[in-house]
Amino acid sequence: MTERIYTAGLVVIGDEILSGRTHDKNIAQVASWLQVQGIRLSEVRVVPDVIERIVEAVNALREGYDYLFTTGGIGPTHDDITVDAVAEALGVPVVVHPQARAILEKYYADKPGGLTEARLRMARVPEGAELIPNRMSGAPGIKLGNIHLMAGVPHITAGMLDALTGTLEGGAPLLSETVGCWTPESEVADILRQVEQAHAKCQIGSYPFFREGRVGANFVVRSTDEGDLKSCVDSLCDGLATAGFDFTPGGI
Amino acid sequence: MTERIYTAGLVVIGDEILSGRTHDKNIAQVASWLQVQGIRLSEVRVVPDVIERIVEAVNALREGYDYLFTTGGIGPTHDDITVDAVAEALGVPVVVHPQARAILEKYYADKPGGLTEARLRMARVPEGAELIPNRMSGAPGIKLGNIHLMAGVPHITAGMLDALTGTLEGGAPLLSETVGCWTPESEVADILRQVEQAHAKCQIGSYPFFREGRVGANFVVRSTDEGDLKSCVDSLCDGLATAGFDFTPGGI
Repeated sequence: MTERIYTAGLVVIGDEILSGRTHDKNIAQVASWLQVQGIRLSEVRVVPDVIERIVEAVNALREGYDYLFTTGGIGPTHDDITVDAVAEALGVPVVVHPQARAILEKYYADKPGGLTEARLRMARVPEGAELIPNRMSGAPGIKLGNIHLMAGVPHITAGMLDALTGTLEGGAPLLSETVGCWTPESEVADILRQVEQAHAKCQIGSYPFFREGRVGANFVVRSTDEGDLKSCVDSLCDGLATAGFDFTPGGI
Repeated sequence: MTERIYTAGLVVIGDEILSGRTHDKNIAQVASWLQVQGIRLSEVRVVPDVIERIVEAVNALREGYDYLFTTGGIGPTHDDITVDAVAEALGVPVVVHPQARAILEKYYADKPGGLTEARLRMARVPEGAELIPNRMSGAPGIKLGNIHLMAGVPHITAGMLDALTGTLEGGAPLLSETVGCWTPESEVADILRQVEQAHAKCQIGSYPFFREGRVGANFVVRSTDEGDLKSCVDSLCDGLATAGFDFTPGGI
């Protein structure tokens, strides 16, 4: 029986990432969270604040993967156009979500200005959408079919992911174990290739580093099967030991 | 006369980014470097270590933009398949570059094992390619037409970018100025929209933050025209002052 693998795409929306001004933190955050849900992040696209570009990326990834996540562009300002782009991608109108409006009314009741027109933008959703709770600030995330629209600010996105935990169907989580070596990866390349070839259900990634004036690498073995993973890690450690390399189980 | 805008795409290659294990640093690094060259990073795709997925992304972005950069997958191990994927995308064979071979022979001459077959993998290039110098370690980057293949390890990529500085034709650099406010962005959304509408050659991005228990936002005005940029920033500051908001030129 072939195991069902659940996949996701992520569209990161924002000129600030593409200009280098802001270092993205959402890719790693969403990736790690998805791992725990048994879902594999399979592709990320970073696109600018331009409707057509967002529409194109959203359509490509929502059709290509089981789930689509977006980060960025759901705030109150003129450059927040994710809702409009997703509605266009789906061919549905943008409507004000009554519950989102109620949340914002309550949130802004005691704040200067109250619920202004700009703030009310954050209650706009593509027709048919549900809300993703946001415990950090007023404006909720948005869920529609397999699409999940989240904030750009990482700690707000974290709260939204937390609210989604356990609600998405996933498969067996991809397990991983790391073995580290204070050795250039090029010296152990043959061992890595041979061990991976002998364990069809495992992948081995080699991640070199340069620290404290020395080179080394971490080898990450990944599999959805705990037994295969253990056997592959054992073979790798045997191979390294036999060839006379020192290694550190757990990674360096 | 319409100014020519030079654009670039970036393909980040690596399972380690998509698993959340490694936090990407190359997007921001490449983006910032491109800004200085007068080239705009217009799209990023992060794809796994799978030939077909790399081919697809490389073909989409090399045709869509003036320049294509890739990071990752040019090392000596079995999961380093970027050269093969790019050769397949271009329909050319993979060959050993004599100069790359000479560099690696020299680099590994005094190292244990010498120039092994695995290390020789790093001299493989798509036919017709030139090398991008790598002053940090042996293996060079690769340049072929509008495509630039660079390392995944950020400090090695930094050296390769340095070697490329000033060699790519670019347009007027995108200039930016920032104004910060300890105010929720939703309170100034109308001002931002009006000021941007009045300055057709400028874009304003609004980037909210939460620090020291208070919310605020930085407004980044971008333009290739210094005069327009200054006039837009002045209008924004006037608008904020007139409405009674404190603001910090230069950003918070």
